[in-house]
Amino acid sequence: MFQIAPTTRVRRSPYFDATVAAGVTSFTPYNQMLLPTSYGDPEAEYWRLLNGVSQWDVAVQRQVEIRGVDAARLVQILAARDLSNCRCGQGKYVALCNHDGTIINDPIALKLAPDRFWLSIADSNIVFWARAIAAERRLQATIVEAEVSPMAVQGPQAEAVIAAMFGDWVRDLKYFCFRQTDLEGIPLLLARSGWSKQGGFELYLMENSRATALWNLIAEAGRAWDIGPGCPNYVERVESGLLSWGGDTDERTNPFEVRMGKYVDLQVGDEVIGIAALRRLHRRGIARHQLGLLLETETPMPPHTVWYDLQVARRKVGDMTNGVWSYRLKRNIGFALLAREILPGAAVEVLKEGKRIAASVTELPFL
Amino acid sequence: MFQIAPTTRVRRSPYFDATVAAGVTSFTPYNQMLLPTSYGDPEAEYWRLLNGVSQWDVAVQRQVEIRGVDAARLVQILAARDLSNCRCGQGKYVALCNHDGTIINDPIALKLAPDRFWLSIADSNIVFWARAIAAERRLQATIVEAEVSPMAVQGPQAEAVIAAMFGDWVRDLKYFCFRQTDLEGIPLLLARSGWSKQGGFELYLMENSRATALWNLIAEAGRAWDIGPGCPNYVERVESGLLSWGGDTDERTNPFEVRMGKYVDLQVGDEVIGIAALRRLHRRGIARHQLGLLLETETPMPPHTVWYDLQVARRKVGDMTNGVWSYRLKRNIGFALLAREILPGAAVEVLKEGKRIAASVTELPFL
Repeated sequence: MFQIAPTTRVRRSPYFDATVAAGVTSFTPYNQMLLPTSYGDPEAEYWRLLNGVSQWDVAVQRQVEIRGVDAARLVQILAARDLSNCRCGQGKYVALCNHDGTIINDPIALKLAPDRFWLSIADSNIVFWARAIAAERRLQATIVEAEVSPMAVQGPQAEAVIAAMFGDWVRDLKYFCFRQTDLEGIPLLLARSGWSKQGGFELYLMENSRATALWNLIAEAGRAWDIGPGCPNYVERVESGLLSWGGDTDERTNPFEVRMGKYVDLQVGDEVIGIAALRRLHRRGIARHQLGLLLETETPMPPHTVWYDLQVARRKVGDMTNGVWSYRLKRNIGFALLAREILPGAAVEVLKEGKRIAASVTELPFL
Repeated sequence: MFQIAPTTRVRRSPYFDATVAAGVTSFTPYNQMLLPTSYGDPEAEYWRLLNGVSQWDVAVQRQVEIRGVDAARLVQILAARDLSNCRCGQGKYVALCNHDGTIINDPIALKLAPDRFWLSIADSNIVFWARAIAAERRLQATIVEAEVSPMAVQGPQAEAVIAAMFGDWVRDLKYFCFRQTDLEGIPLLLARSGWSKQGGFELYLMENSRATALWNLIAEAGRAWDIGPGCPNYVERVESGLLSWGGDTDERTNPFEVRMGKYVDLQVGDEVIGIAALRRLHRRGIARHQLGLLLETETPMPPHTVWYDLQVARRKVGDMTNGVWSYRLKRNIGFALLAREILPGAAVEVLKEGKRIAASVTELPFL
């Protein structure tokens, strides 16, 4: 394994000191920051997320704040999902597409006020993108990366921890809904969300200098539920079928290919970026679709770092875009981006480092 | 130190296997890839670059290819430097700015043909940016990240190595000029360029599957000059005053603040992005400028990972944007982004981790 070189080009999470104190051992780059990815015991971290409660530094999930008289219009122009019925205090999962209908990010759009939104982004530069569009269309909107740093509290015991700290009102919070509040004077926005299927909340810290204090308050309050440090979990997210933009997508992936068609509203206005292309793609039908793979190998494999070709009868039919050992299924699994004619149940071969591994195609999610 | 977690989201350089074989020990994220930053002996790597010749995997320096009938017009719209006199086979260092005149990247623009350009970019997403502008202005240009992977050969002995391999014509190549050629059938573009002030060349490999072969050919041919693996060198680049976009710049840095005014042509056409803002900024005069800092500390310090405040009489006057121990000056040095009124010769204080370090302001480059 390799070390990460020091530089001022890669920004530090405000939770960095707290995660170091908690024993973080590895990171991955994300939005020109570093995302903790392990505290040294991946399997223990996995079962804690599955059975208990886990706290995550997800400050890399940056907030692109869009505010001003044209903010609502701009957000709608950027997102191929009808946001006209989005209420203040509500978030929606959206596909941002380019003019060709290719996904360039899959954020949660949070409506803070009629003229103020956050795009809680995946790993690509949306500040530049949104500014280019706003300036070229002469829209009145201020676009900044907000000084906001989310921390996630995830797992079946997350609600108990959060309710103990914030009160029972949090139990009524609907998925992707949020409320601005504070914790011992630390301003934050509390949302029911997070990049796992185990349930939980995200605390959008709005005063970075209080990051260690917030981290410690959660760690302290969660002690009764045996909370511990964790991270967006590679194994759990693959089992749960969660998309990683940039990991499972390429330079031509459209929303229909990766199970995001239900978040695309083709009847939104013509000024929405990519909508003409999306209508055309939808009419024509997609060339690829995203499915699961069950590998016929017994030995636990480490997480994939590259895509592998998938073949049927020695002909390429797609790519395996991620792969990992599932602790629950006790086998190697992964995602495939496959030619449309390859359906669940099909047998394919994974070409991995000179070897051919038999695999069967299945629906997502696995669990 | 921390490890880098495996993911398919961060792409692998085609030279990855070769650099591993050469003993790479650390990386830094750059353009959603990993840039090698050391082979385990930073000081030896530094002196090799200063006195001999060094070969670098700089595949992270991605090529944004812009081609088509409107390609030249689009490149000029993106770059605030007059490119009308740029010849085929010539590169120019340019500032890409947004509509507010803030630098968003500082690539070399290479003119391959009248209708085909590469922007050899620093660490920010210019594919999205260029596509947004092209689509919004309805320009006919194809914009892709080319499958091209530069390797740098740097140091005073670089010319001898490159001439031995390609012939004596390379000695006449002017700075930033290039020629398309091949090496034992491996297609590449050879340029006199590279992110050091020690001289050298960059080989833009145009067939990624040949990366290991190319790496080994250079290593073999360079043996007579004691070539060895290296990286863009933090110490050398600070001594030489080379700008790191994203490391030494922030969300409001314009070209005039960071010594790039000479690459801005204010008389270029009004359609150039940011030109109105740049004219205004130039007329008004800049608020900050970039200078060097000589620290009054004896102990070699590791490279900085964050910006530190600079004060005069307990009042903030700027930021120290990088810092490192200079092997030649035998002292700690760095860059400052300082209020315009603070001039070379001034005494300032660096606020670093609770301590105050005395420093004096100087011109850049140091050497």
